[in-house]
Amino acid sequence: MKILLTLSYLGGGFSGYQVQGDKRTVQGELTRAAKELFGFDCDITGCSRTDAGVHARAFRATVTKREESSLDTHIRTDRIPMAMNAHLPSDISVSDAEWVDDGFHPRYDVKYKEYIYRIYTGAVRDPFEDGRAWSIHYDVFDDVTLKRMNEAAQHFVGEQDFSAFMASGSKVESTVREIKYATVEKNGNVITFKVAANGFLYNMVRIMTGTLVAVALGKIAPDDISGIIRSKDRSKAGMTAPACGLYLNKVVY
Amino acid sequence: MKILLTLSYLGGGFSGYQVQGDKRTVQGELTRAAKELFGFDCDITGCSRTDAGVHARAFRATVTKREESSLDTHIRTDRIPMAMNAHLPSDISVSDAEWVDDGFHPRYDVKYKEYIYRIYTGAVRDPFEDGRAWSIHYDVFDDVTLKRMNEAAQHFVGEQDFSAFMASGSKVESTVREIKYATVEKNGNVITFKVAANGFLYNMVRIMTGTLVAVALGKIAPDDISGIIRSKDRSKAGMTAPACGLYLNKVVY
Repeated sequence: MKILLTLSYLGGGFSGYQVQGDKRTVQGELTRAAKELFGFDCDITGCSRTDAGVHARAFRATVTKREESSLDTHIRTDRIPMAMNAHLPSDISVSDAEWVDDGFHPRYDVKYKEYIYRIYTGAVRDPFEDGRAWSIHYDVFDDVTLKRMNEAAQHFVGEQDFSAFMASGSKVESTVREIKYATVEKNGNVITFKVAANGFLYNMVRIMTGTLVAVALGKIAPDDISGIIRSKDRSKAGMTAPACGLYLNKVVY
Repeated sequence: MKILLTLSYLGGGFSGYQVQGDKRTVQGELTRAAKELFGFDCDITGCSRTDAGVHARAFRATVTKREESSLDTHIRTDRIPMAMNAHLPSDISVSDAEWVDDGFHPRYDVKYKEYIYRIYTGAVRDPFEDGRAWSIHYDVFDDVTLKRMNEAAQHFVGEQDFSAFMASGSKVESTVREIKYATVEKNGNVITFKVAANGFLYNMVRIMTGTLVAVALGKIAPDDISGIIRSKDRSKAGMTAPACGLYLNKVVY
């Protein structure tokens, strides 16, 4: 059996999820903490490789003994979150731990993942949103604009080839993904774009967000989205929104 | 005429509001930014001296030419927030600027100030609340406890001598303050204590919060609060809650 962790992290202090040399990474911190807790070297396998600055609310990762497919411990799973957190820095927190079969894979077994992207639209920047949202001070985000962003987002839904929404130069076997839902909501000064899919291409949510902002600014019409998707041309979509507004919000197995 | 600024700041990166030698302070950053913007040395006078780690949502401060009671500028007040922010770090933001008379004083002319104190009660710590709330993981904050905390808070209301709720060793002419309202609300995992008064003693809100937590933990009964106030004995009140949960929320002139 493996242990499947649920954890959250504030992305600003990490060079992304995945271990890269001596850089401070989420995987690196989890690997160190697991060794300190269990007393032997562990492998940490994550559900996704988030970039530097990207946050997670409910990231999933398995813990196994290094180079083995399982792990033995007498620590009860309901004690593991507090016990792991005692070895983790304040910008990572484990909220849940459960046993899963040896064959379980936290990335390949994902049914769908949900990301949210937060845009802060206040007239001046908010120190409490620094590093946690993309600050856009154009005064355009009224109800009509929200409706247009939502119309545009609906064109993302379904099984489509999203090459136009992938960072150029990325290598992947298939660029077809199925978007389950995509919504745009406003709460106070914060616009939240929520999108779920069976998988995401590199920078896909950030390019979708940049495209929705182009719709808000009147540079792209909602009905243009299907044509942009069909074009498979990255240059037709909007800019890549900054990492700090992106949150891995949910993973469903 | 003087300029009255409204600003917010995230307290974690500052050694408090007030200039202290070479330490990084809110007043120090504002003084530097004002000089860069207006082109001459300025005095910044704040509405309050918040401690290291304490946050502000709507702090007020006046800007005058150094050692003068007013300031001349051709910059329109509606342009000042963005212009000041261009010279300020990301953990301070000016949201409003207006002209006030030479005789106006941002501290002495306060009618009342409202503080909030945030307590995070989730079962494990939340990285997104780190430095922004007091994390308390005791599983006691149900509706009955909230009701008791609110009952206790009502005993703070009115004009009373709050010596028992002042850091010991503080020097002040009068320890009588008038509390206008005090409420305790829960929203998700966050409890918010909100309190307004014509003035606050040193550490007063943080000691009130520590006392309300002692009520939540059953160490102090709601009806004990009046006796603690009458005792004028700091040792009878609860602990001083940490700075990171405290926010100066509103100032009314």
